[in-house]
Amino acid sequence: MLDYEIFDLGEVALQSGATLREAKLAYKTYGTLNADKSNVIVYPTWYSGQHYDNEWLIGEGMALDPEKYFIIIPNMFGNGLSSSPSNMPPPYDRARFPHVTFYDNVAAQHRLVTEKFGIEKIALVTGWSMGAGQTYQWGVSYPDMVERIFPFCGSAKTSLHNIVFLEGVKVAIQTDVAWQEGWYDKQPDKGLRAVGRVYAGWGLSQAFYREKLYLEMGYSSLEDFLVAFWEGFFLRKDANNLLAMLWTWQNGDIGKTPGFDGDFERALAAIKAKAVVMPGKTDLYFPPEDNEYEVKQMPDAEFQVIPSIWGHFAGGGINQTDTDFIDRSIKSLLAQ
Amino acid sequence: MLDYEIFDLGEVALQSGATLREAKLAYKTYGTLNADKSNVIVYPTWYSGQHYDNEWLIGEGMALDPEKYFIIIPNMFGNGLSSSPSNMPPPYDRARFPHVTFYDNVAAQHRLVTEKFGIEKIALVTGWSMGAGQTYQWGVSYPDMVERIFPFCGSAKTSLHNIVFLEGVKVAIQTDVAWQEGWYDKQPDKGLRAVGRVYAGWGLSQAFYREKLYLEMGYSSLEDFLVAFWEGFFLRKDANNLLAMLWTWQNGDIGKTPGFDGDFERALAAIKAKAVVMPGKTDLYFPPEDNEYEVKQMPDAEFQVIPSIWGHFAGGGINQTDTDFIDRSIKSLLAQ
Repeated sequence: MLDYEIFDLGEVALQSGATLREAKLAYKTYGTLNADKSNVIVYPTWYSGQHYDNEWLIGEGMALDPEKYFIIIPNMFGNGLSSSPSNMPPPYDRARFPHVTFYDNVAAQHRLVTEKFGIEKIALVTGWSMGAGQTYQWGVSYPDMVERIFPFCGSAKTSLHNIVFLEGVKVAIQTDVAWQEGWYDKQPDKGLRAVGRVYAGWGLSQAFYREKLYLEMGYSSLEDFLVAFWEGFFLRKDANNLLAMLWTWQNGDIGKTPGFDGDFERALAAIKAKAVVMPGKTDLYFPPEDNEYEVKQMPDAEFQVIPSIWGHFAGGGINQTDTDFIDRSIKSLLAQ
Repeated sequence: MLDYEIFDLGEVALQSGATLREAKLAYKTYGTLNADKSNVIVYPTWYSGQHYDNEWLIGEGMALDPEKYFIIIPNMFGNGLSSSPSNMPPPYDRARFPHVTFYDNVAAQHRLVTEKFGIEKIALVTGWSMGAGQTYQWGVSYPDMVERIFPFCGSAKTSLHNIVFLEGVKVAIQTDVAWQEGWYDKQPDKGLRAVGRVYAGWGLSQAFYREKLYLEMGYSSLEDFLVAFWEGFFLRKDANNLLAMLWTWQNGDIGKTPGFDGDFERALAAIKAKAVVMPGKTDLYFPPEDNEYEVKQMPDAEFQVIPSIWGHFAGGGINQTDTDFIDRSIKSLLAQ
């Protein structure tokens, strides 16, 4: 018994030229769509996250209150629930899974929102990390539909440094001979564990480790944090799924939206939604500077920084202070 | 014909309990020792660097002027010239090379300086990165001998975040099946290339990539920089050597000097040398905050930050502005 729904997309022609046939969009909704369909929030997922990993930001009394809003969490392609290397039937399965962009993801989500629910306006799109990438994409792809966006700890265009960081993640999987260019029968566990160790320094800040906040999280030592949190996290994932989503991430750029001819600044300027853009102060791969630049090109955007030493995970829902900060800001945006 | 000298150390008992027999210290000197032996500068090497990689900071008219100073560059154990996994005879060769600390390195360097040259005072010890680690160690191990220290882009104790970053480097080698737990007959090239990609995001700053400074360095694209600079850099190294030096780095802590019983702050306070401690503003694994803390514990230390976007490589001698900044500061320290 699934705790989520599947929307059958049928044929999905991707920007890359491939077509996903019998494509599936997995999603979950929270709350009730009101009569005039004016209470919709779309909240896309992040790198390897699935809808339940987003639920920390939803709750009674919170900004994303299912008593007030109809919240849709669409699962990103490649995350193992929507169409992914791990669940596609041949011939587009496993290592042959095609390249998918944020644009492709949001086009599919738009079909869910309109075809399944008949929604014409979205009060808010929000998301963390790659979810932020999809949030910007919503603002560019459907500027007259999206009233507000709140991307946090992400960017509208993946920076060169971020691309380089991800090269380290990618090569950690690919160096494991068990990966077999993606044609493995068994997960390349050594490579997945290696990803955990490579990622560990990036996901959190220098100050996070200096203050040993992993102890506060319930880990008994630094090594316990590396094994139990980081290796454990990636061991639960499928290697081809990780590589597919990594391609999506590295190639994130709203300037590649059809009609913008690669013009990133023009795409930012085309976002009509009222926006709050929120980086984490110590995020090592989505540093505030990149968002600050974006906000200057956007017509109606505000720049707010999470004053946190939790690095990228300031937006990950694992500490209450940062969660409260984000929640308050979304409440304020929704009230406008 | 070697362009450097070898000092035969004979038996070297290490902190770890192992003894390196027929241990060798490779070194090179620049300039002439003056009559009263008062013009000595010691300038240790960094992670995988060899003496010639240090030469950019030496030159006529520079602070490290061989017309005025007698400059000794001792090669760190594990760097392939001094005793290392790659050149030790059995049984302490290759994967069996023992753990070596900064303390061990500096004790050997002290023997070179005193036994070979009869030197009693050192005007300056300076070094980049792991060379900075050895610089602090000189100040703690031989407080009455060292008049000045100038550690740049390094630390007296390897931070927890830095240890985690290095876990990613280590696992990149170890994930390659060709590594064979260190008993390879042929270098694990895939693993060494992987180290290059993992390291690339760490060595330079977000802003370095944002500004595409790799083009200024002569690389034709981001991918060219990753292959030609980063993969090329580590492909020239021996995997066991890298792992041996990585252990030294991860375990860097002057508090582990005999007599200090692990008390880092007391070790810092025991440094009598006049010190200038110089981090790079955007160094991702030796962030200024850690040095700022150290300087507060040191009796006669000044904190100066390189205002650079070259990340850790602000101290790597690849851009003239940062080199000039470092050189000016060393000149000023030497004049005191």
